[in-house]
Amino acid sequence: MTPPTISFARGAPSLDIVDVEGLREAADRAFREDPGGLTAYGTAIGYPPLREWIAQRHGVDPARVIVTNGSMQADAFLFETLVNAGDAVVIERPTYDRTLLSLRNRGADLHAVGLEADGIDVDELGSRLDGGVRPVLAHVIPNFQNPAGFTLSEPKRRRLLELAGEHGFTIFEDDPYVAIRFAGEPLPTMLELPGGDERVVYASSFSKTVCPGIRVGYLVGPEELIDRIRGLATNTYISPSMVAQGIVHQFCRSGALERSIETVKAALRERVEILASALERELPDARFAPPEGGYFMWVELPEGTDVGALFDAAAERGVAFVRGGDFMLEGGGNALRLAYSGVTTDQVQEGVSRLADAYRAVTASRAPSPS
Amino acid sequence: MTPPTISFARGAPSLDIVDVEGLREAADRAFREDPGGLTAYGTAIGYPPLREWIAQRHGVDPARVIVTNGSMQADAFLFETLVNAGDAVVIERPTYDRTLLSLRNRGADLHAVGLEADGIDVDELGSRLDGGVRPVLAHVIPNFQNPAGFTLSEPKRRRLLELAGEHGFTIFEDDPYVAIRFAGEPLPTMLELPGGDERVVYASSFSKTVCPGIRVGYLVGPEELIDRIRGLATNTYISPSMVAQGIVHQFCRSGALERSIETVKAALRERVEILASALERELPDARFAPPEGGYFMWVELPEGTDVGALFDAAAERGVAFVRGGDFMLEGGGNALRLAYSGVTTDQVQEGVSRLADAYRAVTASRAPSPS
Repeated sequence: MTPPTISFARGAPSLDIVDVEGLREAADRAFREDPGGLTAYGTAIGYPPLREWIAQRHGVDPARVIVTNGSMQADAFLFETLVNAGDAVVIERPTYDRTLLSLRNRGADLHAVGLEADGIDVDELGSRLDGGVRPVLAHVIPNFQNPAGFTLSEPKRRRLLELAGEHGFTIFEDDPYVAIRFAGEPLPTMLELPGGDERVVYASSFSKTVCPGIRVGYLVGPEELIDRIRGLATNTYISPSMVAQGIVHQFCRSGALERSIETVKAALRERVEILASALERELPDARFAPPEGGYFMWVELPEGTDVGALFDAAAERGVAFVRGGDFMLEGGGNALRLAYSGVTTDQVQEGVSRLADAYRAVTASRAPSPS
Repeated sequence: MTPPTISFARGAPSLDIVDVEGLREAADRAFREDPGGLTAYGTAIGYPPLREWIAQRHGVDPARVIVTNGSMQADAFLFETLVNAGDAVVIERPTYDRTLLSLRNRGADLHAVGLEADGIDVDELGSRLDGGVRPVLAHVIPNFQNPAGFTLSEPKRRRLLELAGEHGFTIFEDDPYVAIRFAGEPLPTMLELPGGDERVVYASSFSKTVCPGIRVGYLVGPEELIDRIRGLATNTYISPSMVAQGIVHQFCRSGALERSIETVKAALRERVEILASALERELPDARFAPPEGGYFMWVELPEGTDVGALFDAAAERGVAFVRGGDFMLEGGGNALRLAYSGVTTDQVQEGVSRLADAYRAVTASRAPSPS
């Protein structure tokens, strides 16, 4: 019989690093302090005090912020507003599978640009732009990228903004993991760098700092664009959940947010260390760079490794991951994504043992690699 | 200076009839009893215990239910799934302005069928169908219709189901007000009448029984259709707010829901009585039928009354309503919608006085009606 599965598949926090007590207290205060604001229809821009809190955090006018039912919903509104079928859109290779699917479903003409350890390959992007590609949007996950765990360097951030200015496209800076940096130094957002006011639409969320089930995300962008998205949001759902946003607002202003972030960072720092040492010990063929934050580590196995077969062999042994190919339009056959956000340190050890066992089974049974 | 506006415009409850204390307690219990279910990503079908509660209420399998971020979002998913540009859709005349806008924005070919005091004119609909109209969907608000306040009779409910079966269209039974009946006898939903399992997609919400700011609505329909909508919802927002839905679930199972409904019904019954008697006394030209439930009363003024001018004159005097024409593709010039859900009884009296004053000003200044 298969033991209970240890899942490195889902980018979600384990319950032990969610401040449930803080959320309960935030809900209590929110209903006591602003019963009218929580229970009435709000407006599509979100719960006004939370919108203001976010605007202050980013040093922008509240008119440039819209708060939504999770940041995926924000993405959907943004794409519906900016991307028509046939429009060129730059994405990273690999990138978040849901964004990939969402843009494909809209019929976007996707241009996947390679991702390096310091972020998207801006030279490759420059060549494509010089070659005539005219994107409306470039989607970039700058910090602890999903799935690769890589972070965009500051010089590349500046270069991207230059390219956006020269070629007239919008940078969609998709930044849900920014607060979860547990090593290295924070970098400026593209939103706050020169040109960012005009060229960047910034998205983030409280899924990684409060909890995913609350479903509160947001966009910061040029006021005119945010206003168009507000119109679309009004016609879609009148307003997002004022109750959920009111709870997040209380959680933020009480200091619970900062405490929650410290808890999450300490736990994830430890999990990455244990994951990395377990892989080195038990799966020496694996190549990876331990991330400085976020939820994900990208692992490459030797050329020719059949990650599909590994996936099945791992499932038989009770361990789950996501295949690298799921994050790309094509290729990715020898890579996988390990999410360490949802597993305790004990599970990390045991999960890597199972994964290594599955790897040995797959490599023992296969013919020598043709390459 | 204009006094603070008394608004008969918005279909939303006044804070005095929202059970804020019950909500606060429900939130407390929800975080204590199911911290994992509330804080983790859910699935797009909604918070499973609430989904089951709804399914039991309607006597259907939970697989036929999807819970969404408010019922407008449910409408949007349904329309995206069933209605393409150019598709014929039957609507009531008048009907909810947001539904009208949403269907227009999709490029639906709208067929507005007259609404009578006992609901949509099924004979007119039958003639249109015999004349070759082939709708994919008929949108009907069966109870205490928005904006008219009318209720669809049981014989007409059965007739609509027959027509749907004969002509192969889906009835969208949009029923947010069903629980707020404060006079007369409840009628069966079309969903539960013969043919309803196959022919009806039913929508309702907790906006009128818990509060609008919580944003929890739902659909009940054929399993295959609900499953398609689930896919669309996953790609749009992963999952709706588990926190909001967990709070609603606790509110429902604790009995707070039934108490809240009694509070709302008692208050609205009283407001309708006062509204009707104030109109009879102060605005004898007004024709109306006091509704048996819901939020709205439809008022017709003598042919030729310029409701646009009345709207402006009322605004000057500090009273707001929605013009009848806003709920129709064309016409509606001498009607208006009064929402009594958001006004206390004192405000109802004063608001009608101001409205009557505005009416006198408009009718005194206008030329004799040409008709």
